Amino acid sequence: MSDLEEAVRALEERVRELEDTLAISRLVATYGPAVDSGADDVAADLWTEAGVYDLGHRSMDGAAAVAEMVRGDGHQQLIHNGAAHMLGPALVHVDGDRAVATCYSNVFRYVDGGFETWRTAANRWDLERTAEGWRATRRTTRLLDGNDESRELLRRAVTPD
Amino acid sequence: MSDLEEAVRALEERVRELEDTLAISRLVATYGPAVDSGADDVAADLWTEAGVYDLGHRSMDGAAAVAEMVRGDGHQQLIHNGAAHMLGPALVHVDGDRAVATCYSNVFRYVDGGFETWRTAANRWDLERTAEGWRATRRTTRLLDGNDESRELLRRAVTPD
Amino acid sequence: MSDLEEAVRALEERVRELEDTLAISRLVATYGPAVDSGADDVAADLWTEAGVYDLGHRSMDGAAAVAEMVRGDGHQQLIHNGAAHMLGPALVHVDGDRAVATCYSNVFRYVDGGFETWRTAANRWDLERTAEGWRATRRTTRLLDGNDESRELLRRAVTPD
Repeated sequence: MSDLEEAVRALEERVRELEDTLAISRLVATYGPAVDSGADDVAADLWTEAGVYDLGHRSMDGAAAVAEMVRGDGHQQLIHNGAAHMLGPALVHVDGDRAVATCYSNVFRYVDGGFETWRTAANRWDLERTAEGWRATRRTTRLLDGNDESRELLRRAVTPD
Repeated sequence: MSDLEEAVRALEERVRELEDTLAISRLVATYGPAVDSGADDVAADLWTEAGVYDLGHRSMDGAAAVAEMVRGDGHQQLIHNGAAHMLGPALVHVDGDRAVATCYSNVFRYVDGGFETWRTAANRWDLERTAEGWRATRRTTRLLDGNDESRELLRRAVTPD
Repeated sequence: MSDLEEAVRALEERVRELEDTLAISRLVATYGPAVDSGADDVAADLWTEAGVYDLGHRSMDGAAAVAEMVRGDGHQQLIHNGAAHMLGPALVHVDGDRAVATCYSNVFRYVDGGFETWRTAANRWDLERTAEGWRATRRTTRLLDGNDESRELLRRAVTPD
């Protein structure tokens, strides 16, 4: 392989890494608009079919369970009263066909004519590359209310295993 | 065209897509620092000359109207009392020389010695590529207070037209 | 140099700029998870050894002082009660081996069974490229409580020097 061919192959690898990072950031940024607009199928499609959304006190097992949550009375009431599921910038680590994205999240609610911070949490997205693009195999969310698991989740994002 | 030439052309297209996404994210991230520092010209220059900032109850028609808003008494009082127009990560879709970026926004205010969430909203930026770079032709902002338009705005970001 | 070689060199430069922007965004996005999990060494390593964290009313001079802050009683009590240091999307300007990243930050606290916005601030990260990657030489943080310095910090992010 010529020097120029090698340079092009190296560039292709670097561009793919950038594309992976942006694709995963896009996935994370899709969650809020999907659930706040009631797009249950879009929200579910962020996960693999067997993907898990683990909230600690509750777990949704499978993408269909995520869609069901979005269609549920509790969530529908929340978004019709006014709510924003805001996820912050994702800290993305890609390792081949696996990736981890860590971000904060806030749920703001419209209550009594004003907005309040209802929930503040730490989130870890475990992802895999599929034929249809990146999908979450597990999203782990822990309220930042002082519990040990929330700090452990954040620590894993910034320290090697 | 040789295989290597084709590979380079394909890379150029992919890099341009990445650059477009980051340029649009940068535009969205410029709004807050511009208006919170009173940089009326910088804020106005995010829009095309005829660009619209549509808040529902109010509309600014033309970039000059955005600059006027920034210089206005209401906005000046807000930022001198302490305010943060925080826009979240943008979900960007580029289609040639047009693009849409969707993001949440919060305005935090400093009141009585503490910070409060004054407004939480959904935002859609319709953009076009100009000779000077990406500019907004319209920004549509709707409070997330339960109104139908806010959910429709978010739904359009995640479902095909 | 052939046309194709020139095209590859130009691409390499563009890809490096994209990588720099994402690397700096990653650095900024690491601060919150580092300090909220008590990873004092990770937080300190975002700065050069002589790097400064300037909060206005207080300054940490040197990366070791940042680590010390994280280990301190005040910070430990904060994160064990429940806290989120959320930094927004960074507006990054790279100039060779120097860069500036500007972002908003919020600290949310868990108090009396709910979450409150404790601090809302403007942040400027002055960075340099080192042999180990990008590091902060100075982070300047000013509360958005109406003080002039906070607006000046934001203005510098969007207007040329």
